[in-house]
Parts: sequence; C-alpha cells; structure tokens
Amino acid sequence: MKATGIIVEYNPFHNGHLHHAAQTKKQSGADVLIAVMSGQFLQRGEPAFADKWTRTQMAIAAGVDLVIELPYVYATAQASDFAKGGIALLDAIGCDSFCFGSEQGDIEPFLRSYSLLEEQRDQYEHLIHEAVQTGISYPMALNKAYIQLTGNADGFADLKQPNNILGFHYIEAARKMNSRIRPMTIQRIGANYHDPIESSTAIASATGIRKAFFEDKSIEELSVFMPEASVLALKRFKEETGSFGSWERFYPLLRYTILKERPESLKRFAEVTEGIENLIYEAAKIEDTFEGFIVRVKSKRFTRTRVQRMMTHIFTGFTWQQLRSFQAPSYLRLLGMSANGRTYLHHQKKKIELPLISRAASLNDSMGKLDIHATNMYLLGLGATRLKKEFTTPPIYFG
Amino acid sequence: MKATGIIVEYNPFHNGHLHHAAQTKKQSGADVLIAVMSGQFLQRGEPAFADKWTRTQMAIAAGVDLVIELPYVYATAQASDFAKGGIALLDAIGCDSFCFGSEQGDIEPFLRSYSLLEEQRDQYEHLIHEAVQTGISYPMALNKAYIQLTGNADGFADLKQPNNILGFHYIEAARKMNSRIRPMTIQRIGANYHDPIESSTAIASATGIRKAFFEDKSIEELSVFMPEASVLALKRFKEETGSFGSWERFYPLLRYTILKERPESLKRFAEVTEGIENLIYEAAKIEDTFEGFIVRVKSKRFTRTRVQRMMTHIFTGFTWQQLRSFQAPSYLRLLGMSANGRTYLHHQKKKIELPLISRAASLNDSMGKLDIHATNMYLLGLGATRLKKEFTTPPIYFG
Repeated sequence: MKATGIIVEYNPFHNGHLHHAAQTKKQSGADVLIAVMSGQFLQRGEPAFADKWTRTQMAIAAGVDLVIELPYVYATAQASDFAKGGIALLDAIGCDSFCFGSEQGDIEPFLRSYSLLEEQRDQYEHLIHEAVQTGISYPMALNKAYIQLTGNADGFADLKQPNNILGFHYIEAARKMNSRIRPMTIQRIGANYHDPIESSTAIASATGIRKAFFEDKSIEELSVFMPEASVLALKRFKEETGSFGSWERFYPLLRYTILKERPESLKRFAEVTEGIENLIYEAAKIEDTFEGFIVRVKSKRFTRTRVQRMMTHIFTGFTWQQLRSFQAPSYLRLLGMSANGRTYLHHQKKKIELPLISRAASLNDSMGKLDIHATNMYLLGLGATRLKKEFTTPPIYFG
Repeated sequence: MKATGIIVEYNPFHNGHLHHAAQTKKQSGADVLIAVMSGQFLQRGEPAFADKWTRTQMAIAAGVDLVIELPYVYATAQASDFAKGGIALLDAIGCDSFCFGSEQGDIEPFLRSYSLLEEQRDQYEHLIHEAVQTGISYPMALNKAYIQLTGNADGFADLKQPNNILGFHYIEAARKMNSRIRPMTIQRIGANYHDPIESSTAIASATGIRKAFFEDKSIEELSVFMPEASVLALKRFKEETGSFGSWERFYPLLRYTILKERPESLKRFAEVTEGIENLIYEAAKIEDTFEGFIVRVKSKRFTRTRVQRMMTHIFTGFTWQQLRSFQAPSYLRLLGMSANGRTYLHHQKKKIELPLISRAASLNDSMGKLDIHATNMYLLGLGATRLKKEFTTPPIYFG
C-alpha cells in the first residue's frame, strides 16, 4: 500500500481542507492519506479552537485515513522546526510523498529556490544577519535576504506568501534529513485568511468560520463552508466544554500566571527573548482583554504570531531549557484512523521506525509527557474540571 | 495621648471582635485603639473573605481608631513570625500596651509560662526536637514538650488552646525585641470557631458567619451577629466583586498554577517542604474542588493550616528565597483612621519609628511591593479584571 502525507491543523476543518485532502490523494495516486496534525496548541501560538480529538473526528469523517499528533514541541515552534517535526513523522510512518497547499501551486519553483539557497548558504545567512540587525522581524529578514539573492527573477518561489514559506520549510526539512519522501504542492483556493464568512461562497477562511461559531450560527449556515460532520463535531465540543478555545477565553489564566511571575523569571519560558519581559508584565497589569494585551506587546520586531508563541509557552510553563533538550520525534501518537488506515498500519507495522502509541499511558518519555501536560493546560484554559481525557479517549475510529 | 494595640484579621468583623475592641480600650485606659490587621491573605493560609479595605471599614465603623496593614510576609507566616510582625508594628507606632483575646483570660499564667521556657530553653528545644522526630506536627510537638516541662501543674497557660498559643507568641515576640509594650489579655467569649450560626446567640463563629453570607442570608438575620455597618460593607463588597474570597473560589487558578509547575519546581515556594511536592501535584490532577484537594494532601504531619499556607505561597508565587530575604517590618501602611486616630498620628508623628505610608505608590521596597502584588493576586483570584485598587484606594476615613 502506498501512502501520502499532509501536515495540518484543521482549526477547524473546512471545504478548503477537503479540497486539499482529495487532491493530495488523487495527484499522489496513493492508497492511504496520512495527516500529521498539531495537538492542543498551534503554530501561530494559539490554543486550538476545538481539542485534538474533535479535529481528528472531522479529519477522519472527511476521508483522512490516519491522524498522527504533531508533538507540542514542534506544533508550537517557528516554521522550520514545525516542518522538521511534521516531515520526520510522515517519513517515519512510511509516506512516499507529501503535499502542501501553497499560493504558488507548482513544485518546481520551490525546488529551484531550495537549490539556490543551498548553493549560496553562507551568503544567504550573512544577508539574513544583516537584515535582522536593522530591527525587522526574522521572517521579514529571511524574505529580504532571499530577494537579494534571487534578484526577484522568475522561476523562484514567492517566499512572501505564508503557505509558500511553510512549503519551503517542508522541502528543506525533507532534504536535510535525507528523506526520499517526494514533495508535491497544490494551489490553495478560496478565501484569504482574514476574510469574514459573508464575503465568501463555499470556501471561507478559518478565521471567518471561527467567528461564525462564536456567533452561534445555525448548522445550515455553517454547512455551506464545511462538511456537516465537522459542524456537528464542533457543536458537540461546545456542548461538552462550554466554550471554544481562544486566547480571550484563556486570558484570565494567562494574565494571572504572567503577573504571578516577576518579569525577571518570565525570561525562563521558551521564545521569551531578553528585553521583552517588562513589557509583557506591564501590559498584563493594565489590560483586561487579550486583544488589548497583544496590541500593547507586539511590534515590528516581535510579530503577533511570535508574541503568541511566547504566551503559549508561558501559559503551559514550557521553558527554554525544555525546548533545548528535545531532539527528533520519539513516537507516533495515533489520534484516529479509518478502516483503510487500520489496514495500512497492519501491513506496515514492521517497517514503521518509531513506536506507534495509541494510549496516553504509553507515553513515557519527556516529549510525550509534555503532550499530556499540554492537554491538561488546554482543558484548564477552557474551564474544564475533569482532566482524564488524555487517558480515557481511545483513537477515533470510523470503520 | 496613650495608645493600645490589637492584632486582628476581622474575617469578617463580628460581635466578638466588638467586645474585644471595647474591652481593650477600657482595660488599658488608652485614648486610642490601634489595630494591626492582615492584608488579603491570612494566617491560616487563606484568601480573606473580603478585601482589606472592606475589613478596615468594618473596623473603623466599630470604634478602632487606626488600622495598619500587617505585611504579607508576616500575615501568612507561622504563629511566631505572625506575632513578631504584629508586635513590631504596634511597638513602632507607639502603643503602651496590647491586648489579645485568649481562652485563658488572665495574663499571669502566660508570663509564668514564658519565664519557665526561657529558663529551660535548651531542654525545651531538645524535647521539641524529639517530639518532631515521632512524626507529629510542629504545633503538637511544641505542646508535648511544654507539658513535659510544666508537668501539667496549675498556674501555667494552657497552650493547647489556639488563642492561648498565639498570645504566648505575642509575649515572646515583645520580650525578644526588648519592647516596653505591656501585654494584657481578655477572655474570649461566645461561639467556638466552627459552630454554625444557628447554634449561637449574639456571638457566632467567623466560620458560621461566612457560611451565612455564602447562603445570602438577609441583613436582619446577619445583624444579630455583627454590627449593621459590617453587614452593609460586606454586602457592598459582594456586589462590587461578584463573590467573597475563599479557596473554592480561587481553586481554578491555584490548580492551574500547581499543574503548570512540575513537582520539582513546586519546592521553590515558601513553606513547601521537600517530599510533599508530588502529593500536591497528583492531588491537583485528580481533584476538582479545593476541599477534595486539601483532604488528599493534609496529614498528621502537615495540618490543613500548614498546607493552606503552602497553597497561599504557591498561589502568589512567593518563594523560600523571598521569605528568607526579609528582616523586620520596614513601614507602617495606614489602611484607615478615625478622627481620633488622625489626631494621634498628628501628635505622635515625630516619634513613630517607621515611615507611615498612606499611598501604595510610596511602597518602594520589596516588602511593600509584595503587598501590592498580593492584592493583584487576590483580585485575580476573585475574578476581578481591574487591578488598580491598591493605587486608587486612599485610607478609609470616618471623621
């Protein structure tokens, strides 16, 4: 059986994701579609809108065959580490190919850009370093250096676009680990990230869809933009927990924990760069909403996403020291499977390079314990009182 | 003008406290009654039922002339340090005498007990050490050693009774700092600490009264047990903040912060003795109420009060290192005054040994900043969103 892979967040799952999943299976010619999916916290430094089991249900119901959890340490990391974790897991589970959505829609420019940057790596790094010195954010510095190298010539990937950037990191990760996994891309279609739901037709942005759920729109209205199974799974999640995940919802706990620390000790948390700790502390003292808080802290140098990642780590208590202690992924945590996915695992069992974990109780190294911890923190952020969910939830199975 | 002092918590103020205040003024023959009062967290390791300004209002309305805040570091400490802080402040503000309520009701047995223990200090400490080795709590060990020394003879204070113990520590504190302040005591009357309100007449226990407020009893019913001004002040506090302070109310934040830490790092917080950190962590994982949590953690060795003090410090982020860095009180924070109290301050001004602080903005050493911090933590625990109260609340004045 041939498998292809995707790296996803499904926050939440919508028609754009459906298109990506179907096209990936079609173009790759694979028998099995495997998704590596972020857990309870996401790459933009946010708590997930719905928990990982709900998002797994949506994925399996929509035709994904296996959902594997991207561990916290990768899921909440900057793009290059996020990509390393995702690709390593797809590689370990035996995918021949992987496919990412991009603005570019064509794989050749990515490969060409990667070759160029590899050949001129020293010069590239020198240019990045120079750009960072001018006080711009790291992603902006990367892009500036890149444009200097390519001279904006045709045939290279446009690395100003967010999905192109991520795609580039996937290719880089695969190449650096000498994986034989074949990269593919498909064109992203539909709404821009921040479009409100009303301006779109059958594909709306994730932001717009989340807003529609916060406004408690009807199942009929929501089903235009996502499979009905997704709408129902999300409505059920809301009923069970009382609310969707968001920084506003989590802010009372985040604010308390920031103010409990002294500024000095905020620096121990991962991504909290020296010099920003006082600003974080003072903003939390003043602001009683997360939006007010983030507007006060973000800047040209520290983007919203970057600050949100700091907040994720402060919220979960994840330190620089912990971040530095992790190496490659050490397990494959199975969150869900279809009948087809189960058959694949059965055939593939002996070739899978990492332990396949279906029960939280079997997660006994520090990377796995961190995922359990992140779930506890996530549930407390939502206001849940029972914390056994990691241990009582088996992998989702749709046979 | 002659001043006398009391050390109080007023959690909340009731008829028993009214009796103590009136008797103290009468027996001392003083012109001015000064109370040193715990701030937002109390000696039993609990958040106060109402904030320090509400409790100050109750005190001034009931005839106390000056209310001075007992800083967090003393207010939440074990009895001997609590006593040191209280006596040092009463001494610094110029009291000739102080008066504590006791089961004993007569000062002579206390003085006799103190002399005996001073004379036989080495032997006493040896006996305490021996008793602690058997696994009983420190307060029980003290009492056991004491009984061995006195042979249960008449004429000594009964140091099994909680208010007698505290009184003994006041005397010890005064003697050790060579204060000329004269100790007095009056008999405590009325309800036992844990009597429910119904079984009492005009004096009910603080526990019973808090329960009656949680049950939202009428002003008429509550006024039987406390001055009407106190009832009204508490009702107003509830309206403003939405709830009274209690560990159940604070538990979601406490639980989150315990689980955010790893057991290893819980040991940095003050009073958290090596060996109990895993128990604390596991209990928080399982229990979704504070009562369930504390029952799981307390033991013969670690009493409820002792564990609650640990929780107070975990909640506020107060470490062993901070605890060890404090020496004597460094300021007198004025929370409230009557016209009579103001006249006293005016006359006494030049003789007062510590800076008299009426605005939080003037608290600029670490002990004072900790009091501001404790208020922020207290307000967040209550669910308040605005944190300026320390800076916007002037001393209460009833002229």
